[in-house]
Amino acid sequence: MNAEIVAVGTELLLGFVTNSDTVYLSRVLAGLGIDCFHHVTVGDNQQRLGQALKTALGRADLVITCGGLGPTVDDITLETIASVTGRPLGLNRKLLRQVQARFSRQGIRMPRSNIRQATIPKGAVVFPNSVGTAPGFLLTLHKRERFLKGHFSPERSVPERSGLLVCLPGPPAELIPMVERYLIPRLRRCAGKTVISSRTLKVTGLTESEVDVKVLDILALKGKATVGIYAHPGQIDLRITAKAPSLASAQRLIGRVEAKIRQRLKTLIFGADGETLEGVVGRLLRKKGLTLAAAESCTGGLIQHRITEVPGSSDYFRGGVVAYANELKAHGLGVSPALLARFGAVSGPVARAMAEGIRRLAQSDLGLSVTGIAGPTGGTKKKPVGLVYIALATPKQTKGYRFRFTGDRSTIKFKASQAALDLMRNYLEGVPG
Amino acid sequence: MNAEIVAVGTELLLGFVTNSDTVYLSRVLAGLGIDCFHHVTVGDNQQRLGQALKTALGRADLVITCGGLGPTVDDITLETIASVTGRPLGLNRKLLRQVQARFSRQGIRMPRSNIRQATIPKGAVVFPNSVGTAPGFLLTLHKRERFLKGHFSPERSVPERSGLLVCLPGPPAELIPMVERYLIPRLRRCAGKTVISSRTLKVTGLTESEVDVKVLDILALKGKATVGIYAHPGQIDLRITAKAPSLASAQRLIGRVEAKIRQRLKTLIFGADGETLEGVVGRLLRKKGLTLAAAESCTGGLIQHRITEVPGSSDYFRGGVVAYANELKAHGLGVSPALLARFGAVSGPVARAMAEGIRRLAQSDLGLSVTGIAGPTGGTKKKPVGLVYIALATPKQTKGYRFRFTGDRSTIKFKASQAALDLMRNYLEGVPG
Repeated sequence: MNAEIVAVGTELLLGFVTNSDTVYLSRVLAGLGIDCFHHVTVGDNQQRLGQALKTALGRADLVITCGGLGPTVDDITLETIASVTGRPLGLNRKLLRQVQARFSRQGIRMPRSNIRQATIPKGAVVFPNSVGTAPGFLLTLHKRERFLKGHFSPERSVPERSGLLVCLPGPPAELIPMVERYLIPRLRRCAGKTVISSRTLKVTGLTESEVDVKVLDILALKGKATVGIYAHPGQIDLRITAKAPSLASAQRLIGRVEAKIRQRLKTLIFGADGETLEGVVGRLLRKKGLTLAAAESCTGGLIQHRITEVPGSSDYFRGGVVAYANELKAHGLGVSPALLARFGAVSGPVARAMAEGIRRLAQSDLGLSVTGIAGPTGGTKKKPVGLVYIALATPKQTKGYRFRFTGDRSTIKFKASQAALDLMRNYLEGVPG
Repeated sequence: MNAEIVAVGTELLLGFVTNSDTVYLSRVLAGLGIDCFHHVTVGDNQQRLGQALKTALGRADLVITCGGLGPTVDDITLETIASVTGRPLGLNRKLLRQVQARFSRQGIRMPRSNIRQATIPKGAVVFPNSVGTAPGFLLTLHKRERFLKGHFSPERSVPERSGLLVCLPGPPAELIPMVERYLIPRLRRCAGKTVISSRTLKVTGLTESEVDVKVLDILALKGKATVGIYAHPGQIDLRITAKAPSLASAQRLIGRVEAKIRQRLKTLIFGADGETLEGVVGRLLRKKGLTLAAAESCTGGLIQHRITEVPGSSDYFRGGVVAYANELKAHGLGVSPALLARFGAVSGPVARAMAEGIRRLAQSDLGLSVTGIAGPTGGTKKKPVGLVYIALATPKQTKGYRFRFTGDRSTIKFKASQAALDLMRNYLEGVPG
């Protein structure tokens, strides 16, 4: 069984709203093991919606539309479906009573325009709307019926099964409960017995190409589990996806590929699925019973913001200093003015002095520091934009590291925060740095 | 001129990521007055991408693809475009040099797989990528060429103009600068004469309903400019949209409605369009020649992170302290242990002492402080989760404010940072608080 999602709404084509219905429905379909090969969005235009529906019904077993079911004249989904499928519209009394009851509960008389919303294709199975007045329904189209309406050119192969057309209202607050209560149980019955499952492994500190080179042969494997590589600034995700008759067997397939990738990338992988780098660092600090404090210059508070996004971080995070001005480096962190004058604020010795200074001030086990040039101005030939020094002070020693990041100000800040947190993680995991 | 956007990526069909490129591109097209009639998404599948491109080139004057231009084997956009358009791929030496330079700047040897990214259709105009290695380019397809490749059935009308095919990389950080710098200026030259323009007014400190009540009659006006209201955590946007024959006339229509709304909401509006609260605060600080420092507890560095996202912020921002542990409040900010013991860390007196302390330590004109309970744990009956004290120390006086925010940890942190920055803005604009 394969599906196609057709979203209807000029506001989507204008970019005023994000097509969150399609994202949600895609996840639902993947979870049911139903392949979705196309997403299509058209405006409130009968001709273009009609063409999109014909194409979709011609190539997919299940077509889901969302939007265009409101009471106003620019809501054209119902009429278009009637004309494309040849199923006439009829007043659905049950639906009309639901809409009327909804208005009377709010003490309002139902406007005449809402009668339109109870006029749906004959033979449709209604999905009650618990939140709004727009209907939702499912229409089973038989092979012959679709063929007669000319949706298939004779030479194109006709699917063996009959097709399903599902129409849902646009507002997510109306669509989601309808899908959860009525559509998912229904599709579970007719969906094959396959499940799509996936697992994401997260890497930082390497470029997409560097990761690619290391796992190229695994990416190229044409097995039942496939691997995709997705680059974000400062992070590369490897997503393993498997399709199998059950969740357990899908996870077994994924597990085998994951083991291969982990053997290759080892500690370069910082986490999986919903894990964040700050969350992993937090978990390790808690496990080891260590506390942390941070001294930031170019990252401007981002590292501390990320650390404190993790619930319970006050157990291991003591705080820190954002030392933008040299006075704060000197008075707040005790970095000697002589050192600042000799090496400059963006230098290895100052990074190390900052890490030691914050460790002393906050009375923490570990001190992490960052100093660099986030740009867009302030760079020189010797110290260009993107140059960042990171240092980590521990009870035993202080170690400094030098990086060169690319991107705009915001990207450089984020990449520097990734590198600092990853150094922290490597230290806590005992990876030699 | 009409357009179609074709997004490429199996991760989009699986709902793993939101199709933000399409939203962004739609807004750009609307801003240029170019109608976009279809959004299509297909997976990393050469046959289905090929079919989608043929259909798109057959019905749109401008086809924009995004994604599938990476260096790995599952990136199939380049090959597919070559096969659909009949334009052979060739190594673009200029592009290769750019990609090589990018790697050598980072001190890395270019992996062989990246050569693929410099191999683009012949005759393409390259859009340099300032952030990553994937190429972007524009291909002008002539009517005859498209016809010969069989994209049009003879009975279908052939567009008079020749078509444009634009290919962009998927990551928004790479796509957006490319569009701003190269695509928009190019399209401005060939776009038509109707312009859709919009303007967003931004409000913080009120709920959606509170804003709604104040402008209800303006929202209901059925003129040539319409107003929509969009709620985000800690921020309400009012978007005025108008379609007119020229940008000037659209802006006149918008200006009239904007004046009405501004008269109603006055200083509750902190900015418009691309402006951020931290950007507005920065502009005001620079204008008044004042410097700022911050002392954060529950916001954990977020306020300083936001302030330092603004380029040039080192001119007015001196830094600050994230005082999670009481030791940092005492040693770093000079908050007396007696005060902490008497009122507790989350209290008005401690907030005021923190603001004065950071102003003294950083030798800044202004000191801003936040202390509160971000949750999910740590709340009590007297001091519940969401309770936040904010204080502002100025050369003349120190003033404290009490807030109660709702939401999860991350939302409370963000709302507190909005409130703190908005207090700062009001002080700088001379709004009585």
